[in-house]
Amino acid sequence: MAERSASRASLSSRSLQEATDGAPRVIVAGATGFAGALAAQLLWRNASFELVAVTGRSELGRRLDDLYPRYRVPLEIVPLELDAIGALDAAIVAYPHAAAAPTVAALRERGVRVVDLSADFRLSSLQTYEQWYGEHPRPELLEQAVYGLTELHRERIASADLVANPGCYPTASLLGLAPLARAGLIADVVIDAKQGISGAGRAFDETTHQSIAGENILPYKVAEHRHTPEIEEQLQPLRAAGGARDEVAVLFQAHLVPLDQGELVDCYVTPTREVRDEELLELYLDAYEREPFVEVLDTPPGTREVQGTNFCRVFAKADPHSGKVVVLSAIDNLWKGTSSQAVQNLNVMFGLPEGEGIG
Amino acid sequence: MAERSASRASLSSRSLQEATDGAPRVIVAGATGFAGALAAQLLWRNASFELVAVTGRSELGRRLDDLYPRYRVPLEIVPLELDAIGALDAAIVAYPHAAAAPTVAALRERGVRVVDLSADFRLSSLQTYEQWYGEHPRPELLEQAVYGLTELHRERIASADLVANPGCYPTASLLGLAPLARAGLIADVVIDAKQGISGAGRAFDETTHQSIAGENILPYKVAEHRHTPEIEEQLQPLRAAGGARDEVAVLFQAHLVPLDQGELVDCYVTPTREVRDEELLELYLDAYEREPFVEVLDTPPGTREVQGTNFCRVFAKADPHSGKVVVLSAIDNLWKGTSSQAVQNLNVMFGLPEGEGIG
Amino acid sequence: MAERSASRASLSSRSLQEATDGAPRVIVAGATGFAGALAAQLLWRNASFELVAVTGRSELGRRLDDLYPRYRVPLEIVPLELDAIGALDAAIVAYPHAAAAPTVAALRERGVRVVDLSADFRLSSLQTYEQWYGEHPRPELLEQAVYGLTELHRERIASADLVANPGCYPTASLLGLAPLARAGLIADVVIDAKQGISGAGRAFDETTHQSIAGENILPYKVAEHRHTPEIEEQLQPLRAAGGARDEVAVLFQAHLVPLDQGELVDCYVTPTREVRDEELLELYLDAYEREPFVEVLDTPPGTREVQGTNFCRVFAKADPHSGKVVVLSAIDNLWKGTSSQAVQNLNVMFGLPEGEGIG
Amino acid sequence: MAERSASRASLSSRSLQEATDGAPRVIVAGATGFAGALAAQLLWRNASFELVAVTGRSELGRRLDDLYPRYRVPLEIVPLELDAIGALDAAIVAYPHAAAAPTVAALRERGVRVVDLSADFRLSSLQTYEQWYGEHPRPELLEQAVYGLTELHRERIASADLVANPGCYPTASLLGLAPLARAGLIADVVIDAKQGISGAGRAFDETTHQSIAGENILPYKVAEHRHTPEIEEQLQPLRAAGGARDEVAVLFQAHLVPLDQGELVDCYVTPTREVRDEELLELYLDAYEREPFVEVLDTPPGTREVQGTNFCRVFAKADPHSGKVVVLSAIDNLWKGTSSQAVQNLNVMFGLPEGEGIG
Repeated sequence: MAERSASRASLSSRSLQEATDGAPRVIVAGATGFAGALAAQLLWRNASFELVAVTGRSELGRRLDDLYPRYRVPLEIVPLELDAIGALDAAIVAYPHAAAAPTVAALRERGVRVVDLSADFRLSSLQTYEQWYGEHPRPELLEQAVYGLTELHRERIASADLVANPGCYPTASLLGLAPLARAGLIADVVIDAKQGISGAGRAFDETTHQSIAGENILPYKVAEHRHTPEIEEQLQPLRAAGGARDEVAVLFQAHLVPLDQGELVDCYVTPTREVRDEELLELYLDAYEREPFVEVLDTPPGTREVQGTNFCRVFAKADPHSGKVVVLSAIDNLWKGTSSQAVQNLNVMFGLPEGEGIG
Repeated sequence: MAERSASRASLSSRSLQEATDGAPRVIVAGATGFAGALAAQLLWRNASFELVAVTGRSELGRRLDDLYPRYRVPLEIVPLELDAIGALDAAIVAYPHAAAAPTVAALRERGVRVVDLSADFRLSSLQTYEQWYGEHPRPELLEQAVYGLTELHRERIASADLVANPGCYPTASLLGLAPLARAGLIADVVIDAKQGISGAGRAFDETTHQSIAGENILPYKVAEHRHTPEIEEQLQPLRAAGGARDEVAVLFQAHLVPLDQGELVDCYVTPTREVRDEELLELYLDAYEREPFVEVLDTPPGTREVQGTNFCRVFAKADPHSGKVVVLSAIDNLWKGTSSQAVQNLNVMFGLPEGEGIG
Repeated sequence: MAERSASRASLSSRSLQEATDGAPRVIVAGATGFAGALAAQLLWRNASFELVAVTGRSELGRRLDDLYPRYRVPLEIVPLELDAIGALDAAIVAYPHAAAAPTVAALRERGVRVVDLSADFRLSSLQTYEQWYGEHPRPELLEQAVYGLTELHRERIASADLVANPGCYPTASLLGLAPLARAGLIADVVIDAKQGISGAGRAFDETTHQSIAGENILPYKVAEHRHTPEIEEQLQPLRAAGGARDEVAVLFQAHLVPLDQGELVDCYVTPTREVRDEELLELYLDAYEREPFVEVLDTPPGTREVQGTNFCRVFAKADPHSGKVVVLSAIDNLWKGTSSQAVQNLNVMFGLPEGEGIG
Repeated sequence: MAERSASRASLSSRSLQEATDGAPRVIVAGATGFAGALAAQLLWRNASFELVAVTGRSELGRRLDDLYPRYRVPLEIVPLELDAIGALDAAIVAYPHAAAAPTVAALRERGVRVVDLSADFRLSSLQTYEQWYGEHPRPELLEQAVYGLTELHRERIASADLVANPGCYPTASLLGLAPLARAGLIADVVIDAKQGISGAGRAFDETTHQSIAGENILPYKVAEHRHTPEIEEQLQPLRAAGGARDEVAVLFQAHLVPLDQGELVDCYVTPTREVRDEELLELYLDAYEREPFVEVLDTPPGTREVQGTNFCRVFAKADPHSGKVVVLSAIDNLWKGTSSQAVQNLNVMFGLPEGEGIG
């Protein structure tokens, strides 16, 4: 009811997408959810790609700008029938885990390059995947998948055919922790993450009801969130590069708070040795000085600062009293945490300027 | 997920209700929705009644303070089986229209006095009811029902066995318009009403999703809201008492706005003759000087002022420029608009101080 | 505190604006408020203009992207010293009324074309201005000002040197009412307007405190809002064109509701003759079929649908019961209601595609 | 503007407080802020006390129910002139730190028993106080002050003349950690705290502006919050009682999130030995089984569950993966975190049932 039918009348006022000639042809599979819909909008605005279809498993025949009027993508939601859609260069797949893998496989069989938003190809260890998610529908594809945290794996993403877009929490956490990990400074870490209600998706339940969630702070999945192994698997090689020989068991804790879009992670690090603020600032500046979408601050970031952007803002501070280091990392969970990072990855995969359509 | 299970542990800390000896025994039928749950809490706190059961059609066996922890009613939700519940003096019925009437009938057959929160007995005209709501399940009961706007029908409510609690919009609208109507001053009226998301109830859909409704102003049922005939049927005799010989066709328009509890109606009245602010203020002061729950203001009321209370705040102003009169009326849609007015009516029906448990 | 200091570190990641060679040089005067800051962002992103400075009367020396990080305009806030700023083609002036006029005058003396966001040049009648706002600082400029509701005065705007950007309420109201007025159908009208808290501006007071305004519906300036004469002055010639010989006295009533950006006006029209929905739909479709930023709906628009866009969505419905017509018009108060309409007007003034930078 | 003037008209509808004969006479000094106003309301409703005055340093002569209409305390705000107020048994002082101490001293000189909401008497160490807050205005009173976390110091509070009401974060943190501390199980602890905007008080600035704070997650005072020493000073003796010989340096981190009232603290504990969920549950059940206002859960608590109540809900869980223990503790920051705990303490001081007026 809230985002209602635009009449046929509104059609007249919309132009078709003006994609550059010869732009890669792309679809968004699963465009009815928050992540897919935003990905479709970002691609629609991005003249370097031609968005040829948006698909769904529900709402068929309805136009996407009728379901999400402010996104203004005047395409009808169609079923995912690849023969009907025709030639394709790329796809963003926005299905839930387990449902994503077979779709990705079908696209890959036709040579379509894929950025997958689900968890299906984020973990390189099949065993870990099956421990957290159950049986994997297409384990044979794991090998070709590249983890799509652009700032960590840009080169491999450029030549990848299957990019596993990171979870929103791992995106913020890893960008916050990577400089410390590479410097061999992480002995232990606890992550406390907070995110807006859009992170719960388009589900209609108590978690998202405005009169229930709207005045609540809700911790969930205490010490058992699926993003824990994803963070650990990515953090480990960074720590190893920094000289660590042990493994660190991350304690990750998530919360929903009553805003729409925004995510903050607080990383509480026990460092391997004493560090001071000056050293931390230099470390982070060095790590991110050439990164277009990571900003190092000398004050704590609020999530409002990055809302509706692909930016991540990080801030690290030593606490001499407790001997720990606090790292804060703020993103927009739907943008850098999901959909704009997917487009960032597509840009990298097709040799385009990295900020095209998301800057 | 949002309002979660309290453990068995929390049980120990709760005392049973300390009702006065011989207090009327009451149930809330349909206590799982917002209205029924609040009614249960207000009765639980009210030592003049003994709340003997809360019933539901779902969530059976769950405790109400597990579903609504902050309301703290430690009763299990049971099916509505009157034999099992035992002797009863009164009931608040919080079912949807059409589902309410048969339940009300069953209670009345046992001599239980009922305050019904649905629309089933609000309209005295069966024809009007069926035009807006479809077939009436128990038309034979219409005759004994008294419209439960306490301030308008206090005496009849006192002796009534079946009270039809008003809709929240009619409550605010009629309290705002009654003094003008009785003075014969209403030639025409348009009502623009705004209400918080709790007014949409516990439904899980686009209307209540925090990331959809949370940043929206949503008009609905344009010129076709069911509260229109309810307002007209009550307004007409007041106007007639004021000397009007014609009927007025009300234009009523409703909106959802992103807060939890609160309701404001703006009544745009074309007066039958010129009026000035001084006259309006005297008129409203005279009308409400002895009313414990209606306050006349000389500035416009915000809904925050009455949140969590049984109060209605009204303000009337003449606009010499347009020749019209603006009347603003603010209530809490779940309190005076629904559940606390139901308790106010129960208090009146049982000869108790009117503000008992809701002051 | 909320939108905090970005460190010097974040500077490295920002490119300068890539304006087209020879693009008109523009400033935003008064960029520290919500309206000016958004105008600056829209111009920064718009390669057809070169944003050469943002000025302020406070926050001097602070960068605008430090004050509004998500807007990402890396310019220092400077005092409005025209000699220092150098050659200019255009300016958006975002000062309060009375403070705006002298600044506009100074800019006009140097031949700079101005879009003024204040009320100072919206009313053609000096008498009306002084009745509502007090003495006019520069009445001699009134004559050259064109009222900047793009859809109503596009041609005159194209050649204007001083455009008075409309108030947000008049924008939504007039776009909603113009088709009816031109068709001679408005005998009388009441406007009930609702807007998000951003409409109260960056003022720090009870009106904007999250724990006070955050759960409130707040009517204000009952029957005395300054947008009333602005609406009337623009509506009158449209009605006259439709054959009306009388004047209509508008009753306009405003409310703040707890969202950030969004505005809905409900226009309750007493028509000069009976009309039906089909006729209304045709009337509106005809009026707006060539308008790029007005959409005619056949269902009521929620404000969420136009958030962050320059679009206005309108819906008209006849109510046979009351004989009235309801027109709903939804905009984003900061975009089409203020800043993006200012850029739309600049585009028109400089012969650029109308949607440049705001599409 | 938001919580506006009730007219003189509303006066007639309000009864005076019906306090029990001989009830202790009490004032709230500093009733214009959120904490003082709520304390006044709770005392007004509490027939066991007679609220004889509410004082302020601003808003003099205005009625408190005009400033906070929904609290409905019909007393005029008067200056704090003890001679004029007359005989007093008790006072709640709601001034900022440093301003509170001289007022407390003046009240104590007249034998008035005080619950002070400021930080002035919370720390027993003068040195620690002056390190965090600057010079102490009345250090000689420190000795007689009892720390007012009711559940920890009930007996001493009963006979105290000066009770230092805890900070809201220490209240939630200490109730969460006390059972672990007494059992000698805390080797190290990090606390991540989140709280609604009401925690920022009635200040009008960027922190509380609805269009800035309303869609933000804002960390503040990173590793330097003044509640850190307060938590440590109270935690230490509990740990010592559990056999600890060392001191623990707490890392405490606070955040504002966009709701009105609610507070959650996540305590990340490194235990001194391995513990399991069953042991934790028994430990917490044993600790709190006789506490009327602490509830032990076996699922994580959301803050909505305790909104508008004096309850604290705690949940502890072992994480075998990281070896740590997570303790969640939820309160309403304005109720148990501030004002209702002050009344709870007053009840204890005067030998009344502990839940009187706040149950």
